[in-house]
Amino acid sequence: MIELVAFDGDDTLWHNESIFSMTQSRFADLMEPYVEDADLEERLFATEMRNLRLFGYGVKSFTLSMIETAIELSHGRVSAHEIQAIIDAGRGMLEHPVELLAGAEDAIDRVSERYPVMLITKGDLFDQESKLARSGLGERFEAVEIVAEKDEMAYRRILSQRGVPADRFVMVGNSGRSDILPTLALGAWAVHVPYPLLWTHEHVDENRLVAHERYRRIESLADLTEALDDLAANSANSHGGADPTG
Amino acid sequence: MIELVAFDGDDTLWHNESIFSMTQSRFADLMEPYVEDADLEERLFATEMRNLRLFGYGVKSFTLSMIETAIELSHGRVSAHEIQAIIDAGRGMLEHPVELLAGAEDAIDRVSERYPVMLITKGDLFDQESKLARSGLGERFEAVEIVAEKDEMAYRRILSQRGVPADRFVMVGNSGRSDILPTLALGAWAVHVPYPLLWTHEHVDENRLVAHERYRRIESLADLTEALDDLAANSANSHGGADPTG
Repeated sequence: MIELVAFDGDDTLWHNESIFSMTQSRFADLMEPYVEDADLEERLFATEMRNLRLFGYGVKSFTLSMIETAIELSHGRVSAHEIQAIIDAGRGMLEHPVELLAGAEDAIDRVSERYPVMLITKGDLFDQESKLARSGLGERFEAVEIVAEKDEMAYRRILSQRGVPADRFVMVGNSGRSDILPTLALGAWAVHVPYPLLWTHEHVDENRLVAHERYRRIESLADLTEALDDLAANSANSHGGADPTG
Repeated sequence: MIELVAFDGDDTLWHNESIFSMTQSRFADLMEPYVEDADLEERLFATEMRNLRLFGYGVKSFTLSMIETAIELSHGRVSAHEIQAIIDAGRGMLEHPVELLAGAEDAIDRVSERYPVMLITKGDLFDQESKLARSGLGERFEAVEIVAEKDEMAYRRILSQRGVPADRFVMVGNSGRSDILPTLALGAWAVHVPYPLLWTHEHVDENRLVAHERYRRIESLADLTEALDDLAANSANSHGGADPTG
């Protein structure tokens, strides 16, 4: 009863938030002379949220938000050289090797023996294409979709283009906000593989999820095929029904 | 004999380079105290080219390149407030209204009475989706592809996904580099609608193009349907043949 399985990229197949987190530490070091009693992390997040509507996701957007936060927080005292160091930190993120999560290749291979698999990832197009190329996983997917926002509309468009009914689609990912909630809301299945770090923006209350009949949570990709077997068994008995997350 | 007509977005359907050009003037004003006898435009272009591989196209990338150029050119003397002004100039580009070129809507409407039409545009995904939404043209296209680079590989993928043979595809755009050369090289047809401004990066020697049997150049979108009629008549007689641009 499963016709398509899609994987998320960042923090599902390859490490991402850890690179952001490392860069935030570097940023905190640079800002140390200016930060006084301000909460740097909170200020940076506020700038990111303010810029999201215009800048979107990704490293370039994050770098511009770090620069703006530095200027604001230092009341214009931050030096050009410090700003260059921030840009260099951003460049370092883009040059950082793509490190696969344990079991990523194996999980894709095992799933693709039984179902068509694709990648659905959000963010900066250039950045994501580059990461996919460096991940070496490109050839393993039947299709790749890089979208600006992983919302219900985006998933609906992808499924309708492929002629896959929502209740025969499984999304595998780490983000409640981007991978789980919108797919459950459409009537699809969702396998949640939490990553140790989660960007505040992507956080959702897990209590909204766990009771859902089409939701599964696994600790690592090694448990994926078992979760899919369980879903497939359940989907055979499923009557659809109302969506308790809505 | 035409199965698909695709339009480029930036500087084909809506003004784009004029906004970059306006921002560069603002940047030149800001840099006036530091520029001395340097060629600002040349320096900025050099920074953009150096960054292209990591940052890709688009406003955020351009903004980061302006900041780096400012720091370099001023030997670190540029102030945080001036850097904030550069970021604000970048933000202004993203907030700038999308202004359609004369005849854009009409050209799409007339072409779509006879052929399927789509949009193929390159650059920052978030930025391009936002421009398309603000252009009001979204509903007029059967499909939209936003790609990181408009090269032969990208066109080949799009055509193969749609099952359209290259010699039944027409690309309409302003850029020799992105719209014309790769499509001619594939064996497709290309209608060139030059825009008064062209980013140095997109420039190609037009002598390479004009003699090509599958190339047409028009002065404005008002002449498009006539050019397509002419192409359709020629494609009926075409024998394919070697590609003189290769």
